[in-house]
Amino acid sequence: MVTSPERGAGADFAVDDLHGAVGDPLLSAMNFLNEIAGRHPEALSLAAGTPHEGFYDVEDVHRCLRLFCDHLRTDRGFTEEQVRRTLLQYGRTKGIVHELIAAHLATDESIAVDPESIVITAGCQEALFLTLRTLRRDERDVLLAVTPAYVGATGAARLLDMAVLPVADGPRGIDLDDLTRQIREARAAGLRPRACYLVPDFANPTGIRMPVSLRGELLDLARREDILLLEDNPYSLFPLDGERLPTLKALDTHRRVVYLGSLSKTIFPGARVGYVVADQLVEESAGGGPVYLADHVARAKSMVTVNTSPIAQAVVGGRLLEYGGSLRGANERESEVYRRNLTLMLDGLARRFPPPSPVTWTTPEGGFFVVVQVPFDVTDEVLERSARDHRVLWTPLRHFYSGTEPLRRLRLSCSGLAPELIDEALDRFAAFVAACAPAGA
Amino acid sequence: MVTSPERGAGADFAVDDLHGAVGDPLLSAMNFLNEIAGRHPEALSLAAGTPHEGFYDVEDVHRCLRLFCDHLRTDRGFTEEQVRRTLLQYGRTKGIVHELIAAHLATDESIAVDPESIVITAGCQEALFLTLRTLRRDERDVLLAVTPAYVGATGAARLLDMAVLPVADGPRGIDLDDLTRQIREARAAGLRPRACYLVPDFANPTGIRMPVSLRGELLDLARREDILLLEDNPYSLFPLDGERLPTLKALDTHRRVVYLGSLSKTIFPGARVGYVVADQLVEESAGGGPVYLADHVARAKSMVTVNTSPIAQAVVGGRLLEYGGSLRGANERESEVYRRNLTLMLDGLARRFPPPSPVTWTTPEGGFFVVVQVPFDVTDEVLERSARDHRVLWTPLRHFYSGTEPLRRLRLSCSGLAPELIDEALDRFAAFVAACAPAGA
Repeated sequence: MVTSPERGAGADFAVDDLHGAVGDPLLSAMNFLNEIAGRHPEALSLAAGTPHEGFYDVEDVHRCLRLFCDHLRTDRGFTEEQVRRTLLQYGRTKGIVHELIAAHLATDESIAVDPESIVITAGCQEALFLTLRTLRRDERDVLLAVTPAYVGATGAARLLDMAVLPVADGPRGIDLDDLTRQIREARAAGLRPRACYLVPDFANPTGIRMPVSLRGELLDLARREDILLLEDNPYSLFPLDGERLPTLKALDTHRRVVYLGSLSKTIFPGARVGYVVADQLVEESAGGGPVYLADHVARAKSMVTVNTSPIAQAVVGGRLLEYGGSLRGANERESEVYRRNLTLMLDGLARRFPPPSPVTWTTPEGGFFVVVQVPFDVTDEVLERSARDHRVLWTPLRHFYSGTEPLRRLRLSCSGLAPELIDEALDRFAAFVAACAPAGA
Repeated sequence: MVTSPERGAGADFAVDDLHGAVGDPLLSAMNFLNEIAGRHPEALSLAAGTPHEGFYDVEDVHRCLRLFCDHLRTDRGFTEEQVRRTLLQYGRTKGIVHELIAAHLATDESIAVDPESIVITAGCQEALFLTLRTLRRDERDVLLAVTPAYVGATGAARLLDMAVLPVADGPRGIDLDDLTRQIREARAAGLRPRACYLVPDFANPTGIRMPVSLRGELLDLARREDILLLEDNPYSLFPLDGERLPTLKALDTHRRVVYLGSLSKTIFPGARVGYVVADQLVEESAGGGPVYLADHVARAKSMVTVNTSPIAQAVVGGRLLEYGGSLRGANERESEVYRRNLTLMLDGLARRFPPPSPVTWTTPEGGFFVVVQVPFDVTDEVLERSARDHRVLWTPLRHFYSGTEPLRRLRLSCSGLAPELIDEALDRFAAFVAACAPAGA
C-alpha cells in the first residue's frame, strides 16, 4: 500500500495550488544546501553555522533534567506530583524557564526585564515568526531588514505574506540614512513599516559588529520614526578579543527593542528552545490592560505550538542552573574554540591569498562568519563543483538576498569544524577558487 | 529597571495595531478558561481535556531517552558521535522518529504510509497550523470545519486569515448534505474550499463517533467534490466497548486524507511531539517532482520551528520502542481509566438527573467528552459562579463556535480527574445546575 513519489505519477496538486512561500527559491535554497551536504558526506563544511559539538554528551541531557527537577523541588518547593505535572503535562503558554532566562539576561547581558515579558519558544525561529505574526495586521504592514539578511527572517516574513524592505548594511552594520529613507518612502506609499530586523553582533552573514555609538543613534532613530527593532543575538558571546558591547536591548530605555533570544549556539540546537523579550505595552480594546506585547505573542503561540516542550525547557533550565544562570560561564570552552577557529581562518586566508589578489574578505571582530569576494559568479552550480571536485562546502551569498542574480561573494563559517580541520578545508577552498578563477585574474 | 505593566501606564500600541487574531474572542476564551482554573485551584475540573497523569513518572523520560539512544546504536548502527549529533545538533526538518511513527500507524491503525510522507511537528497543533499554511494560497482559500469545532483548528485558521465555513455535525458526526452545500455555495461565491477539518472518533467537544458507512460516503464525497479531509485523531484508542473503527486514513485509497497525529493523549503532552501524514503528490512548477505534500509542509516548518526538538522526539521514540511500536499497548492502563471515568460520568449524570429532566446529555461511545444541555444560558459569568460557589469547572460550548451568542450547552471532560473524584465533581455540578436552573424548570 505504500506509494513512493515517482516522476510521472499522477499528482494531486500543482505547486502553484499551494502557498507561494513553499515554492519560493529562498526556501528551496535552504533545501539545496542541506541536500548537497547530504550527497557529499566526505566534504568538509565551511557552510554550516552549527555550533561546535566537541564537548557535547548525551549524559548532559540527563544531568540537566535532574538539576532542573531538583531546582523545582528545592528552590521552588514543588511536590513530586507538581514536578511530574510540570514536565509531562500541558503547561504555561509563555513557558517555565522565563525566570532563569531573565536571570541570565541580567547576569550576562545587563538586560533587566520582567520575566512576564518573556515568551519561551520552540527555538528562536518561532520567536521571530510569532513576533512578525503579531505585528502584521494586514498587507500594508512591512518588515525592514538589514541586508544581506539571515534567511530565517526573510523566510518567516514570506510565510506570513509580509513584504520585506531591504536596508543597506554599510561598513558599520546598518546605514541609518538608508533606513530613514526606506521608512519614509514606505509610508509615502501607504505602507506601515513596523520593525527593522538586524543582528547587531557579528551579523549573519557579514560578521559585522555595530559600534556602540551607532547603536545609540539607531535607538534614537527608532524612537523618532516610531518603529521597533527586532534584535537577534545568537553570537554576541563570541568576540575575538573577549570584549563585549552592550546589546541594543541593554541600551533600550524606551521599549523600542524586541529581543530575540537563541540558545542553539550557547546550549544545544537539539533543545529547540529560544525566547522573545517583548516588554512593549499594549492597550486592550475594551479599555483593559495594558498588557505586554509578550502576552499577545503568547496568544499567537497557543495556536501554533501551544507551548514549548517543558522537557526541552527543563534541559535548558538545568544547563543555566549548572553555571549559576550564566551562559558566558557555560561557554568558556566553546568561546575558546570559536576564537581559535576564526583566527585560523583569517590567518589561513591571508596566507593563501596574499595581496594583490582578486580574492578579498571581511575581518570580523567575532562570531562565526567571514564573507569572501571571489573573481567569478557564485552560483549553485559552482557550489556543486566545489563539493564534488574539491570536497569543501560553503554558502553562496546570493541566498541572503531576495533577488536571484548571482553574486561574486560567499560565506565561510568557522564554527562547525574541529580546529585541526580548518587548514585542510582552506586548502580545498583555495584549490576550488584556483579552478574557478578566470586565467590572469 | 523592571517595568510591570500597570493600568494607566502609557501604552506603546493599541491592540488594534496588531494582528486581529490576538485580540479575537476565540483566543481570549482559551485564556479565560486557564485563568479561571488558576484562580480556583480548589475547584475540581471537568473542563480540561488533559490526559490522566496517574501513571506518569519523570524517570520515564530518562528511560525512554536511553531506549531511543540504544536503538540508534544497536538497530541503526550509529556511533556515539552520531547519537550525540542526532540528539543535540540541528536535525532533519521532517524529524527523526518518522519510521517509528509509520510502524505505529501500521500496527495500531492499519494505516500503511511511506515514512517520507510524515512530518514530525511540535505537537499536533503545529501539524494543523503548517498544513493550513501550506494549503492557503490566498484569501479565496477557505477551510470547512465540522462545528462545534476544536478551538485549535479555528484558531489556527484565524491566525492565518483563513476563513472557516461551519459544517453541521448532525447526529452521526457530519451532515454530508450540508458539507456538499457549503462547498458548492463557497465555489459559487468565488471561494476555494480546500479541506474539511474533523475528528471522526469521539469528536471534541461532542464525543460523536462517525459510523463506518458514513466514513466511506465522506471519502467518496471528498473525491467527487475535490477537497481534502483533515482527520484529527487524538482519541480513537479509547472506545468504551474496546471496539475500534477504521480511521478515514486507513480507508483512504485516493490520497484524500491528511492525517493529523497527536501523541499528547497517548504518550505525554510535555513532549510536544505530533505529526502529519501528507502523502498527497505535488507537481513542482519547474516540471520536477512530484514530491509529497509533506515536503512542502516541511518547507513551511523550516521557517516556523526549524525542526522538532530531537530530545523530545527521542523520548517519544523510546516510548514507542518500549511497547514494540504499539501505542495501544502503551495505553492499556490509561484506556481502562478513561473507560471507567466515562462510565462513572454517564451513570452519575443518569442518577442525578432522572427523567423527566430539562438536563440531557450525549452518550458517546468513547473518548473524553460529554455535552450537557441545561435550562439556562451558559455564559462565562455562569462559569465564574460555578467555580466560585460550587468549586467545579467545565467548558461553555459557545467556545467551540465562532459566534458569541450564549448557548444552553456545556462540555464535561472525564479524562483529567482520578476515578474516585468523578462523583464528587458531579455532586458539585448538580448543585450548580440546581442553583442556576429557573424555578419549575
